[in-house]
Amino acid sequence: MGNETQHTCSASSSSRSDGGSSSGSESSKDNSRCSTPVLDADRHERLREKMRRRQDAGDKWFSLEFFPPRTANAAVNLISRFDRMGAGGPLFIDVTWHPAGDPGSDKETSSMIIANTAVNYCGLETVLHMTCCNQTKDDITGHLQKAKRLGLKNIMALRGDPAGEEWEEEVDGFNYAVDLVKHIRNEFDDYFDICVAGYPKGHPEAESYEADLRHLKEKVFAGADFIITQLFFRPETFLKFMKDCQAIGITCPIIPGIFPIQGYHSLRQLVKLSKLEVPQEIKDVIEPIKDNDAAIRNYGVELAVSMCRELLDSGMVHGLHFYTLNREVATTEVLKRLGIWKEDPRRPLPWAVSAHPKRRVEDVRPIFWASRPKSYIYRTQEWDDFPNGRWGNSSSPAFGELKDYYLFYLKSKSPREELLKMWGEELTGEESVFEVFTCYITGEPNRNGYKVTCMPWNDDPLATETNLLKDQLEKVNRRGILTINSQPNINGKPSTDPIVGWGPSGGYVFQKAYLEFFTSSEIVTALLKVLKKYELRVNYHIVNVKGQNITNAPDLQPNAVTWGIFPGREIIQPTVVDPVSFLSWKDEAFALWIEQWAKLYEEESPSRMIIQYIHDNYYLVNLVDNDFPLENCLWQVVEDTFELLN
Amino acid sequence: MGNETQHTCSASSSSRSDGGSSSGSESSKDNSRCSTPVLDADRHERLREKMRRRQDAGDKWFSLEFFPPRTANAAVNLISRFDRMGAGGPLFIDVTWHPAGDPGSDKETSSMIIANTAVNYCGLETVLHMTCCNQTKDDITGHLQKAKRLGLKNIMALRGDPAGEEWEEEVDGFNYAVDLVKHIRNEFDDYFDICVAGYPKGHPEAESYEADLRHLKEKVFAGADFIITQLFFRPETFLKFMKDCQAIGITCPIIPGIFPIQGYHSLRQLVKLSKLEVPQEIKDVIEPIKDNDAAIRNYGVELAVSMCRELLDSGMVHGLHFYTLNREVATTEVLKRLGIWKEDPRRPLPWAVSAHPKRRVEDVRPIFWASRPKSYIYRTQEWDDFPNGRWGNSSSPAFGELKDYYLFYLKSKSPREELLKMWGEELTGEESVFEVFTCYITGEPNRNGYKVTCMPWNDDPLATETNLLKDQLEKVNRRGILTINSQPNINGKPSTDPIVGWGPSGGYVFQKAYLEFFTSSEIVTALLKVLKKYELRVNYHIVNVKGQNITNAPDLQPNAVTWGIFPGREIIQPTVVDPVSFLSWKDEAFALWIEQWAKLYEEESPSRMIIQYIHDNYYLVNLVDNDFPLENCLWQVVEDTFELLN
Repeated sequence: MGNETQHTCSASSSSRSDGGSSSGSESSKDNSRCSTPVLDADRHERLREKMRRRQDAGDKWFSLEFFPPRTANAAVNLISRFDRMGAGGPLFIDVTWHPAGDPGSDKETSSMIIANTAVNYCGLETVLHMTCCNQTKDDITGHLQKAKRLGLKNIMALRGDPAGEEWEEEVDGFNYAVDLVKHIRNEFDDYFDICVAGYPKGHPEAESYEADLRHLKEKVFAGADFIITQLFFRPETFLKFMKDCQAIGITCPIIPGIFPIQGYHSLRQLVKLSKLEVPQEIKDVIEPIKDNDAAIRNYGVELAVSMCRELLDSGMVHGLHFYTLNREVATTEVLKRLGIWKEDPRRPLPWAVSAHPKRRVEDVRPIFWASRPKSYIYRTQEWDDFPNGRWGNSSSPAFGELKDYYLFYLKSKSPREELLKMWGEELTGEESVFEVFTCYITGEPNRNGYKVTCMPWNDDPLATETNLLKDQLEKVNRRGILTINSQPNINGKPSTDPIVGWGPSGGYVFQKAYLEFFTSSEIVTALLKVLKKYELRVNYHIVNVKGQNITNAPDLQPNAVTWGIFPGREIIQPTVVDPVSFLSWKDEAFALWIEQWAKLYEEESPSRMIIQYIHDNYYLVNLVDNDFPLENCLWQVVEDTFELLN
Repeated sequence: MGNETQHTCSASSSSRSDGGSSSGSESSKDNSRCSTPVLDADRHERLREKMRRRQDAGDKWFSLEFFPPRTANAAVNLISRFDRMGAGGPLFIDVTWHPAGDPGSDKETSSMIIANTAVNYCGLETVLHMTCCNQTKDDITGHLQKAKRLGLKNIMALRGDPAGEEWEEEVDGFNYAVDLVKHIRNEFDDYFDICVAGYPKGHPEAESYEADLRHLKEKVFAGADFIITQLFFRPETFLKFMKDCQAIGITCPIIPGIFPIQGYHSLRQLVKLSKLEVPQEIKDVIEPIKDNDAAIRNYGVELAVSMCRELLDSGMVHGLHFYTLNREVATTEVLKRLGIWKEDPRRPLPWAVSAHPKRRVEDVRPIFWASRPKSYIYRTQEWDDFPNGRWGNSSSPAFGELKDYYLFYLKSKSPREELLKMWGEELTGEESVFEVFTCYITGEPNRNGYKVTCMPWNDDPLATETNLLKDQLEKVNRRGILTINSQPNINGKPSTDPIVGWGPSGGYVFQKAYLEFFTSSEIVTALLKVLKKYELRVNYHIVNVKGQNITNAPDLQPNAVTWGIFPGREIIQPTVVDPVSFLSWKDEAFALWIEQWAKLYEEESPSRMIIQYIHDNYYLVNLVDNDFPLENCLWQVVEDTFELLN
């Protein structure tokens, strides 16, 4: 019988016979010894499989549509919006394609790059729209190859609007979306999941509603996996359309496109573009309040909620697609009221995972980039494979260099004037820098009355977890231990803990205490004397901008500082302190002093010279207390250091 | 400065600049992500490096010489001796080569296979002797290739005794050991560490002592790494020889061969073979007591201890090589009295590691073979790589089949008559089998007054750790839960704990409670009902000999059940419950009922039929309690099962 696996007992409710058998039979194909522990099934499924699984489980879901922004600043804001709206648990987002806007280019604002950012940096399953009319096969193949290279796995195949009034079919050209669907299947086999558009009222240019249904069927039979519909105003419009589709043999998922009315003008414009007619009952409500944005939005939310409820209650609809117009409030409110906005405080791993297929097994990262995950993803994007299970012994491939383009991701979301208010219009010495760090920790306003809500190393206010260390952090920052990363020790808290938990339920999470800071060479000298007393207990790495490095790490091995033990699984250790990649992080951490802080000031100004001095002379230090079951000794180490100095 | 690592601070005593730099510079060569955590530096060093490291550290060491046994039974005993004497911490053992005894064959008793067993199954660094005279180049290359294939890394290159009285040099043949040394270096480059023999009194056939020293120098300059000397009777003989060697430029380690006199006849025979003369002062003591073995051995031990002390005190000697004559007592006593017998209760991993170079990164194994590590090594010997860090997701390559040859390793050390006394001359029903299991657990004599010191699944008495569970195990075995493997849960005990500790000091070790047993289908039916209550907490795998398999393991993933957290290192998880390899273990576990127990009885005898019935109808069950910080619930599961049955 060998390795044969049979599941014969149906008495046990959870002997997952299907999952078990299929997983067993796959084992011979994938002989990799370091495969992922499948903490998060989502990372391993294609979009159509996720859709099917959610439908089978009776879970309702939603997706969100965005268009590419016009400016780099708008792009930074949109990415933040992806992060915030991603927290609600969309099954996917999609990014529209505007042929006039150079959508396949490398510009920060192109459809391609925005979709790339959503997948790789925000960890969102993403569908990239693509239109085909008036384009050559080569162009289209080029776009698709690029999308694949960037880790995009889903395409919404559209015709697009013909340029000019008098449009004629090209022989052998791409005249309809179905041509694009066929092309994708011909050239890329089953690599992409393909979505196509459905028109509940029929396409405005179709000969008839029935003819349009037949076109839709052609697109599905050419290889589309699911359908998203054009917006509509009445639930019965969609439900009739769906029944008509099923009647002619369309069996794939059909997802209603929901447009929460958010304002008078946006509605008018959309209606004009889509050639739809707004029902009289809606016009009757809107016209009298057309200058009251809030009132229209409230009405739009009510309307969308009641329509969505009706759709979901019909039992025919499992997912809802939202035309967000890049706005957050209305859609979020509709989703929350429907109860399908699912802000799950539990993370699959302590850090946000990327959705690039190359990275789906990744489950270990150095702790250094904890507050800069996008930078970490950027600097490791060229890696062929990602660490899984173990970080490995000093074996990290090279990190990407610090380049200009990279500074796009480096760039603070706050404008210069705001940063100056937070970090000081004029610095008078190292102490004024200490003060900025201290204010960031305490949340108290600085001497000019401004709160410090971000730092060059931390785009966001202090993490809840770091709050656990607030009092001690304040004390040491005041005295010139300028902390940029820390975590408390944890000795087996439930994986469902709202602050430090991660991973599946029923597990336990652990941490070693970690502290990372910049400090002067004087303090480092004292610290090293103190550390001798803690030799076996505390691991340290101390480095300056020139790369002078002092460490007691055994054989330059990584030190696991976060790990979790889960039912029926191997151990997961998502963060390590790795001596080798610390030297790459060091370059970035020191560069941020200059790029983000010093450059706020005039060249040769005293303020700039103070930051430059710190950059040139301070050390970056990290400390790990290995004895996680005992009380964190790192504060005592720092205390002893100050005592030695006095 | 990129990834450059500089160690500039000598203030810190333990900033291991050497180790650090060398390890760092190697990182670019080995880009494997799953490299070993170097829990145990020994596993990564060649013998000559170990020798150098021990010498640099001022550690005195010893090595042990054995000859191949004549019979298969003697081989089984010698392997047990390897295990026992290996516990004292020899730097290496060596196995002699007797051209007349087919030393390179696949026989259980050949030099080649005994050395193979020492390396692979006993985890001992091993030197294989090899003689060259009267052999063709092809024969010798064949032997060396085979040795390499088996994982042997060290050769003692000898001439051997010419066959026949009248020996003539062959042109282009192997006439001297130096020819063999050159041949090994030519054909195998630096793969092998090579040892050669030194003669403190000069080789009996050499023209002169000086000529013999010159021969020795030739062997060293041809590529030998160290020298072991022929036995001698006076320390000054060796010390003079060593000085003479150094004087002519021999700088490699020279290890004195120590022969503790163990009996009158063995001494006379050895002296005859080696053409040495026994000094008068020794003869004077021995002749009067020649019929008193104990007296001679005591004298031999005294003599060896005092000679070794003198050698070690000279400061010139760092290691001692013992001619054991395959005996244990005298050598062990000398070593203990010298204080260099180092029984280290702390294990690098919870299981005994193999010394095959292919396996040096191995640090994960399924728990099933915990009491049969040699069988596990045998059944995985064909694997190209071994799991490191993670076991992997249902990805274990095939296990070797159960073959006849394999039964050599399966074979119990006890003779049939003894087994019958322990396991019952005549079984009267399943209950008499329950009794055998219970007596093994309790250590009480069975109804015929014999203690049960081994079982088909456990060659040795109960492990100390299992003793922690003794009371509960007794209770359940009495009632037909026939346990063959178990471990208690452990929530962070120091890695230095004498019972459950392993790995470097300063760490913490953890375990999930584990219980594995055979039981009837009636009990399994009740157990499955009970397990529903423990669904999320307890993982189970239940299988019968036909391979019918019931499990609740998520996606057939492995469950880590032993892990350790150490200062400055990644997590180590040395044992897992792997659903896939459990099915390979099942074949072995069920076969042991028949091969070791049923076959003790006549065919068609009632006793044999009882064992056959159990083999055909019982299930093999394993249970893991995932909630390691709480009290082990597996006893409650079993208790509930019995209650349900009543």
